[in-house]
Amino acid sequence: MRLSRYFLPVLKETPSEAQIVSHRYMLRAGMIKQASAGIYSWLPLGLKVLKKIENIVHEEQERAGHIPVLMPTIQSADLWRESGRYDDYGDEMLRIKDRHGRDMLYGPTNEEQITDIFRSHISSYKDLPLTLYQVQWKFRDEVRPRFGVMRGREFFMKDGYNFDLTKEDALHAYNRHLVSYLRTYERMGLQAIPMRADSGPIGGEDTHEFLVLADTGESEVFYDSAVTDLTFGDREIDYDDVAQCQGVMEEFTTKYARTDETHDEAVFAEVPEERRRTARGIEVGQIFYFGTKYSEAMGATVQDSDGNKVPVHMGSHGIGVSRLLGAIIEASHDDKGIIWPEGVTPFHCGIVNLKSGDDAADAACDEIYNALTALGLEPLLDDTKERAGGKFASMDLIGLPWRITVGPRGLKNGVVELTSRRTGESEELAPDAAIARIAEIYGISAG
Amino acid sequence: MRLSRYFLPVLKETPSEAQIVSHRYMLRAGMIKQASAGIYSWLPLGLKVLKKIENIVHEEQERAGHIPVLMPTIQSADLWRESGRYDDYGDEMLRIKDRHGRDMLYGPTNEEQITDIFRSHISSYKDLPLTLYQVQWKFRDEVRPRFGVMRGREFFMKDGYNFDLTKEDALHAYNRHLVSYLRTYERMGLQAIPMRADSGPIGGEDTHEFLVLADTGESEVFYDSAVTDLTFGDREIDYDDVAQCQGVMEEFTTKYARTDETHDEAVFAEVPEERRRTARGIEVGQIFYFGTKYSEAMGATVQDSDGNKVPVHMGSHGIGVSRLLGAIIEASHDDKGIIWPEGVTPFHCGIVNLKSGDDAADAACDEIYNALTALGLEPLLDDTKERAGGKFASMDLIGLPWRITVGPRGLKNGVVELTSRRTGESEELAPDAAIARIAEIYGISAG
Repeated sequence: MRLSRYFLPVLKETPSEAQIVSHRYMLRAGMIKQASAGIYSWLPLGLKVLKKIENIVHEEQERAGHIPVLMPTIQSADLWRESGRYDDYGDEMLRIKDRHGRDMLYGPTNEEQITDIFRSHISSYKDLPLTLYQVQWKFRDEVRPRFGVMRGREFFMKDGYNFDLTKEDALHAYNRHLVSYLRTYERMGLQAIPMRADSGPIGGEDTHEFLVLADTGESEVFYDSAVTDLTFGDREIDYDDVAQCQGVMEEFTTKYARTDETHDEAVFAEVPEERRRTARGIEVGQIFYFGTKYSEAMGATVQDSDGNKVPVHMGSHGIGVSRLLGAIIEASHDDKGIIWPEGVTPFHCGIVNLKSGDDAADAACDEIYNALTALGLEPLLDDTKERAGGKFASMDLIGLPWRITVGPRGLKNGVVELTSRRTGESEELAPDAAIARIAEIYGISAG
Repeated sequence: MRLSRYFLPVLKETPSEAQIVSHRYMLRAGMIKQASAGIYSWLPLGLKVLKKIENIVHEEQERAGHIPVLMPTIQSADLWRESGRYDDYGDEMLRIKDRHGRDMLYGPTNEEQITDIFRSHISSYKDLPLTLYQVQWKFRDEVRPRFGVMRGREFFMKDGYNFDLTKEDALHAYNRHLVSYLRTYERMGLQAIPMRADSGPIGGEDTHEFLVLADTGESEVFYDSAVTDLTFGDREIDYDDVAQCQGVMEEFTTKYARTDETHDEAVFAEVPEERRRTARGIEVGQIFYFGTKYSEAMGATVQDSDGNKVPVHMGSHGIGVSRLLGAIIEASHDDKGIIWPEGVTPFHCGIVNLKSGDDAADAACDEIYNALTALGLEPLLDDTKERAGGKFASMDLIGLPWRITVGPRGLKNGVVELTSRRTGESEELAPDAAIARIAEIYGISAG
């Protein structure tokens, strides 16, 4: 993308309403614009990151064998009356009457809708196991929305639901989700620690929350520092392998890691003192096994191999897609702006033309831009007439992990400058070498 | 995808509530499930087609230089009071009160929201031209929703908005949209004819609707049969070239083609009688130029080169993404089911195993499946135990354009069968040749 043709409204001033760094930087970098309290428009740069995160979520869910569907945002209240949650849910549910006076609502979650789909179409154990998921907009009418997309009212979330014949199968689905979530977050450059949590209004006993450590997190968390040494890495997973998934689950959940809701001082005291940590965390996902709570209430049964009708065992599993932008920025920024991990960066590389209008500089920028584009990468070329200082400040603010700086002086010596946003280190090298380096960073063969 | 692991709930019975063929087939092929009146869940097969259509729309919009954003579904009523449309819009607007009693609404369209984004960030003619668009869910509370996704209440739509300094520039944006829409529909295998239309509540005088001819269309249309001979083809377009875009616009809009709203018998009578046609059409898109209607009401101005504040010239441009599934099926089906055009088919090719459990047949199916997958294609392999007749009926119903049939008898002779869904013609050939043919059809080099 050439900046002269893009819509990237960066702000010089820090918006006064933003209390935390991710909210400030998302506004200043022209990623979002508040539409009303807790409701945001996604401007081009923000939307690009949102889509990258959504794509990673889809890829990892499909890798785990889960099947995408898409449910509507507006639901009939009748389904929620069946489960008993229509009255229970409280003021966070956005309740609506349509033109015929029917009670509708904007879905805050979808256990009822997905159970209705299941019971309408599946009646035999032979069609199990089945996990359906979606990434869709949801609404929770928070009394005091704040922190930008971290605690908004309209938010984008992945919600998945497993349907299994037995508790044992459902616990495998639970583990499969846990494993796929570990991969998902790591691809975004995040360490998200599964912590034993409380199930709240979803119900059920088995549940883990995934938390990203950050000073601005809303939850107090307690953990054994050894959990932060665990990484998923590039291990091969067979998601049908029950023992393998269970092994990963145990590896990542055996050491002490709990939110304040489930924290137990006596158990925590058994952790060696030098490894006991108290911190704050941002919740970016949660997995639940809740058994037959919804299937019994709503009649979601299958015939088992003996011909008996049995309610299916279910769980639900969420990733806060829009909230993840905030969490990633909270975890990865400095005083100049955002520092995107390579896995979610909106553009792979920035190109700054120090002297737009200079023939040699313009030509070199175009060549680098075209070469990167031909490799399937997306560069952002600042081809505007702004001063170099302003261009650098904007590039630092929007946080592309790599920048190539092109100017007439360097070109006389046959070099451009490649700069890492994270370390600030720069290196002079030939344009071709810079292109090859960027390709290598993103795992693309430049030959 | 292997059918044994997929969720494809095909129905044998024809649902009684469905009055038109696209609605019947979408229900029977397990593409959608009604959630409540005019509101649908997208099951896996339907979602795949929806995403293919959405992707084509994105690709063609970005090719035209338009920039994607994403606006929230829930809007504040205040913006609509500024434009004066809050009271005008009537009962089709889903009006909501949040927990604090504030008036909100589920956006039926977004002229107000996008104008607010524009006026908040743009103040100079130097930042023009600018076209922003989104593909997002919308809601219109139809009094009598019907025809499935063709006239639903919650629907997925592309809406784009151009901002230009002058009327002349805005008319170029209008033409750019017209051209990009022609390309978009042709990629979906559709002939959508631009017809002079009425602007309705959006306002403005210049507007064309794009109509697909179909007996079940809601609009009566009148046209010179010569318009159906026009095809866009693979012509190269430079979307910055004002004269080229205008030339295409004139080529496609000069001959008589109007909806009943703008039909003029006197003008129609000038068309040679043998070319006068009256038919029905499905509206799949509309483009508008409406000048300064919203920019004046909402203060969306820029400084021009003389330093004067002037309201920007705008237009809006829509494609009915979810409705297109219905339109494509209305235009492309037979009495056995859907016939997907290659550009939007949910899977590129079906593979039917005539004897699941037979080692040779299973192995050949796996080989074909893996070879197609390695080429970047998505086959659907029916590896279930169902009878051959049932497998063929399901494949015909869901409408994949190509099917490879694998059975022990053919394999003994070294052949499989390749069948065109559209013509019904079959051909026996070696598995490798069948793979190569499929690759060729989808423009992939199999070497």
